[in-house]
Amino acid sequence: MFYVLVLHGPNLNLLGQREPETYGSDTLNDINSKLNVISASLKIELSIFQENSEGALIDHIHAALGTKDGLLINPGAYTHTSVAIRDAIAGVSLPTVEVHLSNVYKRESFRHHSYIAPVAVGQISGFGWYSYILGLQALAHHFRKE
Amino acid sequence: MFYVLVLHGPNLNLLGQREPETYGSDTLNDINSKLNVISASLKIELSIFQENSEGALIDHIHAALGTKDGLLINPGAYTHTSVAIRDAIAGVSLPTVEVHLSNVYKRESFRHHSYIAPVAVGQISGFGWYSYILGLQALAHHFRKE
Amino acid sequence: MFYVLVLHGPNLNLLGQREPETYGSDTLNDINSKLNVISASLKIELSIFQENSEGALIDHIHAALGTKDGLLINPGAYTHTSVAIRDAIAGVSLPTVEVHLSNVYKRESFRHHSYIAPVAVGQISGFGWYSYILGLQALAHHFRKE
Amino acid sequence: MFYVLVLHGPNLNLLGQREPETYGSDTLNDINSKLNVISASLKIELSIFQENSEGALIDHIHAALGTKDGLLINPGAYTHTSVAIRDAIAGVSLPTVEVHLSNVYKRESFRHHSYIAPVAVGQISGFGWYSYILGLQALAHHFRKE
Amino acid sequence: MFYVLVLHGPNLNLLGQREPETYGSDTLNDINSKLNVISASLKIELSIFQENSEGALIDHIHAALGTKDGLLINPGAYTHTSVAIRDAIAGVSLPTVEVHLSNVYKRESFRHHSYIAPVAVGQISGFGWYSYILGLQALAHHFRKE
Amino acid sequence: MFYVLVLHGPNLNLLGQREPETYGSDTLNDINSKLNVISASLKIELSIFQENSEGALIDHIHAALGTKDGLLINPGAYTHTSVAIRDAIAGVSLPTVEVHLSNVYKRESFRHHSYIAPVAVGQISGFGWYSYILGLQALAHHFRKE
Amino acid sequence: MFYVLVLHGPNLNLLGQREPETYGSDTLNDINSKLNVISASLKIELSIFQENSEGALIDHIHAALGTKDGLLINPGAYTHTSVAIRDAIAGVSLPTVEVHLSNVYKRESFRHHSYIAPVAVGQISGFGWYSYILGLQALAHHFRKE
Amino acid sequence: MFYVLVLHGPNLNLLGQREPETYGSDTLNDINSKLNVISASLKIELSIFQENSEGALIDHIHAALGTKDGLLINPGAYTHTSVAIRDAIAGVSLPTVEVHLSNVYKRESFRHHSYIAPVAVGQISGFGWYSYILGLQALAHHFRKE
Amino acid sequence: MFYVLVLHGPNLNLLGQREPETYGSDTLNDINSKLNVISASLKIELSIFQENSEGALIDHIHAALGTKDGLLINPGAYTHTSVAIRDAIAGVSLPTVEVHLSNVYKRESFRHHSYIAPVAVGQISGFGWYSYILGLQALAHHFRKE
Amino acid sequence: MFYVLVLHGPNLNLLGQREPETYGSDTLNDINSKLNVISASLKIELSIFQENSEGALIDHIHAALGTKDGLLINPGAYTHTSVAIRDAIAGVSLPTVEVHLSNVYKRESFRHHSYIAPVAVGQISGFGWYSYILGLQALAHHFRKE
Amino acid sequence: MFYVLVLHGPNLNLLGQREPETYGSDTLNDINSKLNVISASLKIELSIFQENSEGALIDHIHAALGTKDGLLINPGAYTHTSVAIRDAIAGVSLPTVEVHLSNVYKRESFRHHSYIAPVAVGQISGFGWYSYILGLQALAHHFRKE
Amino acid sequence: MFYVLVLHGPNLNLLGQREPETYGSDTLNDINSKLNVISASLKIELSIFQENSEGALIDHIHAALGTKDGLLINPGAYTHTSVAIRDAIAGVSLPTVEVHLSNVYKRESFRHHSYIAPVAVGQISGFGWYSYILGLQALAHHFRKE
Repeated sequence: MFYVLVLHGPNLNLLGQREPETYGSDTLNDINSKLNVISASLKIELSIFQENSEGALIDHIHAALGTKDGLLINPGAYTHTSVAIRDAIAGVSLPTVEVHLSNVYKRESFRHHSYIAPVAVGQISGFGWYSYILGLQALAHHFRKE
Repeated sequence: MFYVLVLHGPNLNLLGQREPETYGSDTLNDINSKLNVISASLKIELSIFQENSEGALIDHIHAALGTKDGLLINPGAYTHTSVAIRDAIAGVSLPTVEVHLSNVYKRESFRHHSYIAPVAVGQISGFGWYSYILGLQALAHHFRKE
Repeated sequence: MFYVLVLHGPNLNLLGQREPETYGSDTLNDINSKLNVISASLKIELSIFQENSEGALIDHIHAALGTKDGLLINPGAYTHTSVAIRDAIAGVSLPTVEVHLSNVYKRESFRHHSYIAPVAVGQISGFGWYSYILGLQALAHHFRKE
Repeated sequence: MFYVLVLHGPNLNLLGQREPETYGSDTLNDINSKLNVISASLKIELSIFQENSEGALIDHIHAALGTKDGLLINPGAYTHTSVAIRDAIAGVSLPTVEVHLSNVYKRESFRHHSYIAPVAVGQISGFGWYSYILGLQALAHHFRKE
Repeated sequence: MFYVLVLHGPNLNLLGQREPETYGSDTLNDINSKLNVISASLKIELSIFQENSEGALIDHIHAALGTKDGLLINPGAYTHTSVAIRDAIAGVSLPTVEVHLSNVYKRESFRHHSYIAPVAVGQISGFGWYSYILGLQALAHHFRKE
Repeated sequence: MFYVLVLHGPNLNLLGQREPETYGSDTLNDINSKLNVISASLKIELSIFQENSEGALIDHIHAALGTKDGLLINPGAYTHTSVAIRDAIAGVSLPTVEVHLSNVYKRESFRHHSYIAPVAVGQISGFGWYSYILGLQALAHHFRKE
Repeated sequence: MFYVLVLHGPNLNLLGQREPETYGSDTLNDINSKLNVISASLKIELSIFQENSEGALIDHIHAALGTKDGLLINPGAYTHTSVAIRDAIAGVSLPTVEVHLSNVYKRESFRHHSYIAPVAVGQISGFGWYSYILGLQALAHHFRKE
Repeated sequence: MFYVLVLHGPNLNLLGQREPETYGSDTLNDINSKLNVISASLKIELSIFQENSEGALIDHIHAALGTKDGLLINPGAYTHTSVAIRDAIAGVSLPTVEVHLSNVYKRESFRHHSYIAPVAVGQISGFGWYSYILGLQALAHHFRKE
Repeated sequence: MFYVLVLHGPNLNLLGQREPETYGSDTLNDINSKLNVISASLKIELSIFQENSEGALIDHIHAALGTKDGLLINPGAYTHTSVAIRDAIAGVSLPTVEVHLSNVYKRESFRHHSYIAPVAVGQISGFGWYSYILGLQALAHHFRKE
Repeated sequence: MFYVLVLHGPNLNLLGQREPETYGSDTLNDINSKLNVISASLKIELSIFQENSEGALIDHIHAALGTKDGLLINPGAYTHTSVAIRDAIAGVSLPTVEVHLSNVYKRESFRHHSYIAPVAVGQISGFGWYSYILGLQALAHHFRKE
Repeated sequence: MFYVLVLHGPNLNLLGQREPETYGSDTLNDINSKLNVISASLKIELSIFQENSEGALIDHIHAALGTKDGLLINPGAYTHTSVAIRDAIAGVSLPTVEVHLSNVYKRESFRHHSYIAPVAVGQISGFGWYSYILGLQALAHHFRKE
Repeated sequence: MFYVLVLHGPNLNLLGQREPETYGSDTLNDINSKLNVISASLKIELSIFQENSEGALIDHIHAALGTKDGLLINPGAYTHTSVAIRDAIAGVSLPTVEVHLSNVYKRESFRHHSYIAPVAVGQISGFGWYSYILGLQALAHHFRKE
């Protein structure tokens, strides 16, 4: 069994209520349910949190040190502005997959830069909630490889 | 009656104590009192918060969804660095007016860029506490138009 | 009684005929009428001009030296290109409020920079014709403060 | 019959006297004559002006609203500096063709950017006085299409 | 049954021989075999090509018009330099998933920009050959959604 | 009789099928027919090719050396990325006219720069297939001048 | 006796566990012990906090107003992104020394810029935990000077 | 006898009234008187104009063609924004000296760039009204050399 | 005996016919003859190709894997635009020398950047056909060193 | 009597031998003689040095502290690269006039920036050796003013 | 006993005479005396030089190779312009501490970049002469660590 | 017989002692010996100097005027910062070849720009001491051509 921390960044609690043409109509609970369904088949146990605060996200990442095997994160807006989350991920040295609901490369140019990507194993963007499913599979694949 | 959330961003609790030549000698309470006086005449009821934390500001914005008709915000330093607050405002889709005490265009060049302005109805800067009064009027005018 | 020069920059004579989705359906005369109504209550007497020529706008600003107490200006396109109007305002040293009908921060990036803002008391943008009303109030407030 | 406003921007009155290796030896009158010859065959009636002043060019564009069917303009140096002329063209919403005598892309880099092109139907540069002839044909073709 | 064109860009024929620490030790044939295995279960039939020439990649994309339902592409170095491939994808309007073996955001800064991403459904990078598997799943998911 | 090479760059074979709102509904054959009709009246004989490959376009340009009098080229996406085509044109020293169907200055900023324009006689953009007709006239005019 | 607030920014709680080749093997407690030892000899009393949240750091700075004589801060990742912490320091007007464990000028270019340095007395970077000792001495020296 | 056109650009009519710490206390008439005194000894006859309008300045430059031997110009704010005045000077091909009252290199960075300098013989800045005297001498020297 | 692949990039087949003041009057055959003369004395056997197509150049580089000891390449215009050729060279890991006929640092600024240089042993530019001779000597020297 | 240090920067000893079309045919001795002639009439005594070394120029500037009343300097190439000479001038606080033989604004763009100008009284460029004469007059005028 | 070379860069000989509000009133001798006092207690023997010439500073650094254990340097203005001093320090591989009297991050933006910092152990700026004392302590600490 | 000045720039005296993995293990004397061996066979007589001072390098270049036929220079760090050496080379108008031991294009980006290359015949970099041998051959070839 592998243990994975799933982190949803700022504003993702609004999911389903907020700009459905950009983010789809699924709520965060819907996504979490889908993740829990698939995680079983991947022999992965999930701990899932959503936080609007940069500091709270960092606290969760720190807490994963020694207790989790990997991190699946949608850093939301902090993707583009948070060196602190980047440093937290680098600090705990857990394999990390960065996911985005929307295709950030179709949006404002300030969303094209990620502080997180260079410390992640890889990045997946543009497939709505399915980005998370792919991200969890990618993490599972990464565990199997090692 | 319209319901408006008023948000004061980081460091605004120092008002009156802090750099009076830039920000004036009124305290935050003084400004809030003035806002409450004028809001009655505009048939607006205010809920007012000051937060130093980006995440807490986002939480207030989320809580306004379905309970408020508009947002009057002085994002302070987060104006220039917070994509997350921008996304929160876009997410709740409430008409928003951005105000600043000082004329940000007279200050350091990093203060000339606002992440918030493109998701606001409009922006007012440079008139000290009176920027808030003008901002509330602008919001009231916006309500009447719709 | 305070005396205020109101200047409408290039293309504002087209107002009401031109891109109503961006600028609203009021004509310049409509706006001027509204300004005249409110100026009386503010004990302000207005002189209003619209000019398409940068030089003519500068001439009006010079003529205000010693005859007016303040300047309310919508510099239109010259906001982004005219160092000469900026110098004229700095030269006459009259308190100046810069207003814009549209929220310039939602438009092309070359409209995000203002040569005028650093020599103005403050800037108001995005509230249609109501930006002028707010601007005049801001100027009146500035007179009262001094 | 279609009615077209032809505008020659700043310094074009010097044509024939000024830098013939760059602009050719035809005077502005020569070009206007050639335009008048061809316009007849295209069933177009021309009104032609040359102005050195940005404001005067804007005035002519405004006057074309409701009286002309299209605009043929060589904005000269204002191509690179005038947001106000761009806004005038966008304001009157007349189909506009931008022409240049010289190939601006062979010259100083500040001449490679045009504020006018994004609000024009198209742009033609580099063919001397024949750029105008092609521009008028392009406008005639545009009229036929609609 | 859905039909998917799989395109491997320049230098991917070297796979397995070339910089294994960056790209892994699988050859292109190994990856193709894995893709063929999974495609069956996804009810997808694959046509797979590798090309070093930008023009040949464009030809394949054109040929997919009317014959394929989607495109899975690793544009390799052309990701960063080819407007022509971008235009080909936009031209045929097929749902496209962009994949990369390595995490391009850990490499030289010129590899952080993709001309392809803005015309793709989404992008996946950093998971070695497994990026292709995830990409095909993403495409299958996209087909099911529509 | 003058001999002119007409080159259509990458993706132009999709014409009529691809993004008609941007490029019009004429196919490449339609355009070629129109060019052939007009070329007769201009005493010009055309050789016309469309290529998706940068190298193939260069080969055609080289082949024109000593056999053609001029070049009419729509370099498509290679306009913005190909130094090699620029060098080919400079190398054969044939008078060249660059044409574009769409107004490239209304599109993404990377389309505003042309490597070809500085080695061409002139550039025409924005008039759909009629850009080609104007371009051929411009070339004919250039021949007559010399 | 002087009173100094010592602030450790985000991720510094990981110290000793995290990237020892960059940050050394001392834990935060080790550093705090060393600071307490030296502070006695400097007649300085320390209050020490570590926070991962930008807002919490600002709260500590505000609380120092009127109770502390100076601030010793390692802003960590917020050095490069936080205008709000800069404004807090400027707001309380306490003499501030900025320290860094690693030599930030040897690392990624985004770590070369500090929002904090211009509002600090000075900056010390690169000496591991000894940067703090030097920083406290610098602060003590600053107190003696005044 | 040589004939020289002296042009004062926008806002220079305010001289003596405007920002004396930057521009000195002499009025434009004072400067003109000083120029007339020295011109006699240099066997130069002056025609002097001040204009706030870019177009009017261009008209004066055109009128100098064939009637003047040189141009002494303080382009004021148009130094930094006017390609049209640059083209006018290049068009008439008169030897031109550019002068500035203040040292523009001590002021805002947008004042460090001059569109005029590359088409002038030389530039003099920073000596108050004496910049004009030096400029006239420079022009006289230029006449003698030829 | 060492085996070296010599690649001439786009437009080099025009050599001798094309811009002799920039590239000299030798044809490609002349250069190849000179290279063959000198290669014998260096105990090197050459395979020489000229290609206008980026893809064809990549194919030659791939074919050199396992059959050649080094690569002498004049990438021509692809120097400045081809990440794909860079990746091909890095992929085959053959010692590579980059040569240019002209001094690229005297030409347009876009020719100052080379994608190839960072994956080559070294670069030689500016000596006409003699750059190739020097490049072959440099490669021979490199072989002897290892 | 005023005492002025005249400094000629690097390569100015080549004057008369070097690029006469850019710098004129006068030697440095010729210029110095002319300066000595005029200095007498201005009641100024000159000390003149030419140095190719940045450090030697700084030494001369330091030696002027307390012994000279002003500095006339042509910093040559160090204009564009020497912060140290700038600091020396600021350090000794002597009124300084910067002169250039050629019009630096007509040359390479790296020559458009001066580190010296912001610490000088003013700058004169483009008049050959006469720039020095004008510069000495400017300094004399500056002395008279004080 | 450790041996340390102390280098004072250009203009530091002016110390005490020059801009005391920026650099303090101590002379270089005062600072050297203070350094000598503290060095004894640190069991360090100092050799101290001040040079205005970049080359002379390099010579001192070279001379330290094999004779000194470390380098304490205030590179002054050369901090921002000298790649040669950087290379000298990297060449001799001595542990180096870079110090500045003033807080360079409060000054002109060209002073924010240091060529020296990336090859130093660390950097200390802003504490006047006490920056040197801290720097020497930092070096002593570095010696003890090894 | 041709006479060539060989100049080694700053820090090259450290050669053999300094960073052998970057610069090789040969000392400057070793390189000079190799140059002297080959120069005889090329009928070239060498004068060789190494200087750490920019001014001294310039003095050597000036002294070559009229006494040498060419210049072989490794400007070291001054390559990237010295406009003065560039001007010296342009001033004496001697054919110059620029050489570098290391491949500067593999190193920090500030080493990718050369102020010297545009005034040299050509540039050779990356072949260790053999760059000098190639450079001398290139110079000899240049002499033969003329």
